[in-house]
Amino acid sequence: MNNRRNFLKNTLPLGILPLIPLNSFSQELYKNGGTPNKLRRPKVIFFDVNETLLDLETLKESIVKTLGNKKELGTLWFTTMLQYSLVATAANQYFDFGKIGSAALIMVANNNGINLSAEYAKNAVKPILSLDAHKEVKEALELLKKNNYKLVSFTNSSNFAVEQQLKHAGLIDYFDAKISVEDYGKFKPDSDVYNWAARKMQIDNKDCLLVSAHGWDIAGAVWAGWQGAFISRPGQQLFPLAPLPEINKPNLLALAKELVLL
Amino acid sequence: MNNRRNFLKNTLPLGILPLIPLNSFSQELYKNGGTPNKLRRPKVIFFDVNETLLDLETLKESIVKTLGNKKELGTLWFTTMLQYSLVATAANQYFDFGKIGSAALIMVANNNGINLSAEYAKNAVKPILSLDAHKEVKEALELLKKNNYKLVSFTNSSNFAVEQQLKHAGLIDYFDAKISVEDYGKFKPDSDVYNWAARKMQIDNKDCLLVSAHGWDIAGAVWAGWQGAFISRPGQQLFPLAPLPEINKPNLLALAKELVLL
Repeated sequence: MNNRRNFLKNTLPLGILPLIPLNSFSQELYKNGGTPNKLRRPKVIFFDVNETLLDLETLKESIVKTLGNKKELGTLWFTTMLQYSLVATAANQYFDFGKIGSAALIMVANNNGINLSAEYAKNAVKPILSLDAHKEVKEALELLKKNNYKLVSFTNSSNFAVEQQLKHAGLIDYFDAKISVEDYGKFKPDSDVYNWAARKMQIDNKDCLLVSAHGWDIAGAVWAGWQGAFISRPGQQLFPLAPLPEINKPNLLALAKELVLL
Repeated sequence: MNNRRNFLKNTLPLGILPLIPLNSFSQELYKNGGTPNKLRRPKVIFFDVNETLLDLETLKESIVKTLGNKKELGTLWFTTMLQYSLVATAANQYFDFGKIGSAALIMVANNNGINLSAEYAKNAVKPILSLDAHKEVKEALELLKKNNYKLVSFTNSSNFAVEQQLKHAGLIDYFDAKISVEDYGKFKPDSDVYNWAARKMQIDNKDCLLVSAHGWDIAGAVWAGWQGAFISRPGQQLFPLAPLPEINKPNLLALAKELVLL
């Protein structure tokens, strides 16, 4: 399919392509089977924080313990938190990301016969403020800094939370700016948030690169006209219906080594 | 807190209330602990379809079988599908709900070491077209029709899918209209979709009642100015950060019996 599409692209005038009958499901999934665009040197590199820079392990342990030690429920909680962050955004509402995390925990717990107070749920989510960096992160950020890249953190966490997080992980000095969606009032991957972050850094969308371990974050950035760098950490997947990002690496150091060649 | 808030509401001029320092987490969660608004007779009753009218059991069995028989992964799949429907909406994209379901299944499977083809995933999701109605649904809809209620189905499923679903479940004749978000291009609970559905039925938001077994759907409807009726089916929870809906019943017949009294 990939070869056929490229063949058609290269040999037919542009207007004819949409007339070729392709099964619409294959056509969409095709996007992810295609060849990604070539990575260009970005003016600013934006980093997602949770999971991308920081290791969620201790947070997950706290959540799983709260949910009766069922490991799968830890993943269900995180997904539910992400779902409800977008429920809020879609309904023109905004709540602190941590508060949505607590609310999601109460919901998942109730569904599994566990009753949690708001206070208990809030405490169970607290380890999010004191996560360690993934082991290769400092070396990667140092390499990028040495090569004159401008680095910006860009997270769904609140301003307060990300300040605590980057301080605790010893990463705060690497960043030229810290952007939280809290200042805009919508969560990633709403297109408006990427547009706003680019404007905040006074650059065009095409000059932004998002580094993220989340398929939904990469999809949102690429749809907004950014370049995307997916960090394929364990348990993370690209969204099969979104275009492929420019680059896909298993960790941040492997990515940094490519970026310094540009 | 509830009594104190009501006391303040009743005794202080409106403008003073926001100055009372309440812990913001309690304040938000308070909404769900408060007293719901009194239910008024709606001009149109809108019904969510999947889970609310139709029993997802056979679909879940198919999904769980595909995911190596781990039951928790069935719930994770459904939540991931809902998350990614909103990822699309937030990024101004639209895909068929079933296609998002297949994509979500591929992602959850990959994360658990299972490789699925697009074709296999599509087939695993297909039982969504042939679900049975929950056992009390026909009696409830009949009761409402006899009492001159206008009934409308309102779903994230595509037009094609909901037609198949309601035919197979023997429910199609109960509905005066069938509304799919496909015609608007955004998924529930985006506020725009509720506004659009109300306009389509030529009534105001305040004259709409949404019946749904999903906390996110009820939250979206209530935030859009509709009335809400939550059907608390097993495994379903209200969103603790949203206002309480007007009514909360364990099944559709219990709800219908209240509605015919209005």
